[in-house]
Amino acid sequence: MKNNVNRELPEDLMKQLDYKPFETTEIGHPEVQRVAPKVTVTTGDDKVVESLEDVVKKTVKDGMTISFHHHFRNGDFVFNQVMDIILKLGIKDLTLAPSSLTGVMNDKVIEAIKAGTITNITSSGMRGSLGDFVSHGGLKNPVIFRSHGNRARSIENGNIKIDVAFLGVPNSDALGNANGMNGDAVFGSLGYALMDAQYADKVVLLTDNIVDYPNTPASIKQTQVDYVVKVDKVGDPDKIGSGATRFTKDPKELKIASMVNDVIVNSPYFKDGFSFQTGSGGAALAVTRFLRQSMIDAGITASFALGGITSPTVKLLEEGLVKKVMDVQDFDKGAAASMKNNQNQQEIDASWYADPDNKGAMVDQLDVAILSALEIDTNFNVNVMTGSDGVIRGAIGGHQDAATSKLTIISAPLVRGRIATVVPDVTTVVTPGESVDVLVTEYGIAINPRRKDLQDALSNVPGLPVYDIHDLQKLAESKVGKPEPLQFTDRTVALVEYRDGTIIDTIKQVKD
Amino acid sequence: MKNNVNRELPEDLMKQLDYKPFETTEIGHPEVQRVAPKVTVTTGDDKVVESLEDVVKKTVKDGMTISFHHHFRNGDFVFNQVMDIILKLGIKDLTLAPSSLTGVMNDKVIEAIKAGTITNITSSGMRGSLGDFVSHGGLKNPVIFRSHGNRARSIENGNIKIDVAFLGVPNSDALGNANGMNGDAVFGSLGYALMDAQYADKVVLLTDNIVDYPNTPASIKQTQVDYVVKVDKVGDPDKIGSGATRFTKDPKELKIASMVNDVIVNSPYFKDGFSFQTGSGGAALAVTRFLRQSMIDAGITASFALGGITSPTVKLLEEGLVKKVMDVQDFDKGAAASMKNNQNQQEIDASWYADPDNKGAMVDQLDVAILSALEIDTNFNVNVMTGSDGVIRGAIGGHQDAATSKLTIISAPLVRGRIATVVPDVTTVVTPGESVDVLVTEYGIAINPRRKDLQDALSNVPGLPVYDIHDLQKLAESKVGKPEPLQFTDRTVALVEYRDGTIIDTIKQVKD
Repeated sequence: MKNNVNRELPEDLMKQLDYKPFETTEIGHPEVQRVAPKVTVTTGDDKVVESLEDVVKKTVKDGMTISFHHHFRNGDFVFNQVMDIILKLGIKDLTLAPSSLTGVMNDKVIEAIKAGTITNITSSGMRGSLGDFVSHGGLKNPVIFRSHGNRARSIENGNIKIDVAFLGVPNSDALGNANGMNGDAVFGSLGYALMDAQYADKVVLLTDNIVDYPNTPASIKQTQVDYVVKVDKVGDPDKIGSGATRFTKDPKELKIASMVNDVIVNSPYFKDGFSFQTGSGGAALAVTRFLRQSMIDAGITASFALGGITSPTVKLLEEGLVKKVMDVQDFDKGAAASMKNNQNQQEIDASWYADPDNKGAMVDQLDVAILSALEIDTNFNVNVMTGSDGVIRGAIGGHQDAATSKLTIISAPLVRGRIATVVPDVTTVVTPGESVDVLVTEYGIAINPRRKDLQDALSNVPGLPVYDIHDLQKLAESKVGKPEPLQFTDRTVALVEYRDGTIIDTIKQVKD
Repeated sequence: MKNNVNRELPEDLMKQLDYKPFETTEIGHPEVQRVAPKVTVTTGDDKVVESLEDVVKKTVKDGMTISFHHHFRNGDFVFNQVMDIILKLGIKDLTLAPSSLTGVMNDKVIEAIKAGTITNITSSGMRGSLGDFVSHGGLKNPVIFRSHGNRARSIENGNIKIDVAFLGVPNSDALGNANGMNGDAVFGSLGYALMDAQYADKVVLLTDNIVDYPNTPASIKQTQVDYVVKVDKVGDPDKIGSGATRFTKDPKELKIASMVNDVIVNSPYFKDGFSFQTGSGGAALAVTRFLRQSMIDAGITASFALGGITSPTVKLLEEGLVKKVMDVQDFDKGAAASMKNNQNQQEIDASWYADPDNKGAMVDQLDVAILSALEIDTNFNVNVMTGSDGVIRGAIGGHQDAATSKLTIISAPLVRGRIATVVPDVTTVVTPGESVDVLVTEYGIAINPRRKDLQDALSNVPGLPVYDIHDLQKLAESKVGKPEPLQFTDRTVALVEYRDGTIIDTIKQVKD
């Protein structure tokens, strides 16, 4: 069985898990019955519990699905605390369904898999030791990778049924009114966690900061929360932000950023009221800087900036160059701190951000998205999940979701060290070429042949060489040579869903 | 069959509609499966529709349940516009399930009942010609009266399944992001309408003010909205507010207000961090004024004020005497205008406000509630639904809900004209005496015998005469005499639910 991006899919597994192969990026107009949680009624007077262990005992049973958010990123103190207790209690056969997994959780997840405590995982991604462990066959059942929008979709239609959500927050009152904006371990938007708070049967907040009732603004509401557990510390503020708030000085990154800007400015979308999503990292910040200048020069403003938000984006909001920041996640302290005081920086949940089975998500209104790639192939398919060794080391994040924008730009160096980024065939298809419009490398750009209009718009821009993507691939190959084909076993260690829940690719166990 | 407030209930009807008799105000800890809407997927690009008739044709079918909100009160231009089209299209057998019905809707509802277009109604209340029409047997099926909290409960558990909600808003963008804070017909909190937006299968916004995308704050979100219809005017700003923003000069009302304040101040609940709900109308505003002075004198502040919000309450917020205003509805322009700029005036939905089947509603945390009464009897049962002639002329509103507060005060004159307020037996039990603590009249107060603690606390307050409620009833009777018993037929024209969905009373057709 092959899907529409020419990937061979394991028929037995597809049937067993009731999956369909990926066909198209078009979502259409299906009617979707949403689901809702089971609520255990209380007046709310006894929610504050001293002992996390007591709460885990009351809520978590063998076979359940538990969830966490990753807004604390590598500053997270919540996941390991909860999992230690779950391990100690000998609970088995859990499905782990966090919004994503960060490095600080890796050792504990591996320990829990080995103990039989975690037997299933769905996540946006995984990196480091855990990716390595899974790619080498450490987990019996295949991991299911879902984009942020797809996770929202799956929670809203019941494909992911969360029994207990453990959500760390930098503040909460005694009934569970909480936000990400005040306290020591501030991360700003609670965007991903809002899905868990709304749909989990049991919601447990962990906080180091119990404040007066009623706590407002209440991103998470008392009507959603069963327990509030006081812990010493929910997170390390210094490790929450990505750190990268400075522009890159790397000439290659600057060149790419400048060309990304040229693509945007010369596209039909660069006009008053346009919208965009950039990512995190030095190169993305550099794009924001170039774009800022172009907007000033052209005298135009953007209606909104979307996605994971950075300080430079907030700066554009403050300057009036961007009217609204639609904020599902903050990537640094400055962005997180700003949400509290700027009414035009609107917290949005993952459904509003990107659920495709929706009455319209923000990504559906997006003009320009600048996304990254580990690999991109000559069909414009993008891999952000597996490394050149075939090992899992990435995350879908909002990649598939934001790629629905009118102008999706992949910004990537032609080669990284001795490894080509532009390849004949990506190791893992995460985002289908159908939704990718332009590749920008330090040597020049390639335009998806589906976009004749962009070919016309971008063919005569000074300093913006336009290549056939096959030529960029050959150029990359000429620089780093042809790698040995990767060796995989037949065993599927992960399924990569497209945002509509079909299977776009699988990841096989690597051969040692 | 009698319930726990000694009301005879129609056994056949109870069985037919699967109702249980009211037993207790205690909600307990049931497990409740919530429901969720069916979503028709779209990217949201084609939501704006010029013709309201087209939208009605697409969405409303015979036998459906349709809903509206009453935040515009008597300034509403939405209900009649929609109903005119529904009538014109000859749609039949609809259930009308608005958050409440205001006078401006009455004629149209009667017309629609007569046409067979509306055959069932559930509402918080009804007044004037419509109450008269129903009380005289004009609607075949009994009306079901529900409190604001009970409506939220019923929507959340599927007892009220809204097929199409028509929601007027003073602003919306083209995808349906909307709030009650900007535009011509501003009403502030969208509290009651938020239930409809979240749970209806189809949500139609009507607005006279389409603003740039994305519109924030988005009380109603694009993820909830199917259509945005541009109309000439959604409401008359001058008729939205109750008008009553001035303190009463009526000496009787002032005396009652002063005694209400005495009850609060001398109760065990008047301490730093206490919370309260007052209502609208001159007397309630006077209570707020007295309470303000008492708080200043005692040097204490309130943690929150709840409920329908008035300008004097917002003033307390601005003075720092109240820390948070939790706002499900605004009763005047000042209160509505304030929400936009004051972060501590938090919009809350009807579920958060008062749904009893919840993980804790605001009313569960309420210390003091000051409520009104058309009648109160010697068992402290309160009637806010039927007049002395037995005709429907009221609304439950949040009465049953706020009565769960720790100190529930009924503020009412002993007599109104030639009609006693304190009676042996109320015409209709809306709020059970079990949840009422103190009656305050211009002659003095009566304390529910269940509250020995309050008897002790309030027995020696200068200027606060404490009566047995039977004595107040006799006093009233001595002033206005014993009225002729009301004459009803056997036919049930309305069922009054308690907030947990049991039947607390029925209303019979009046004899002509």
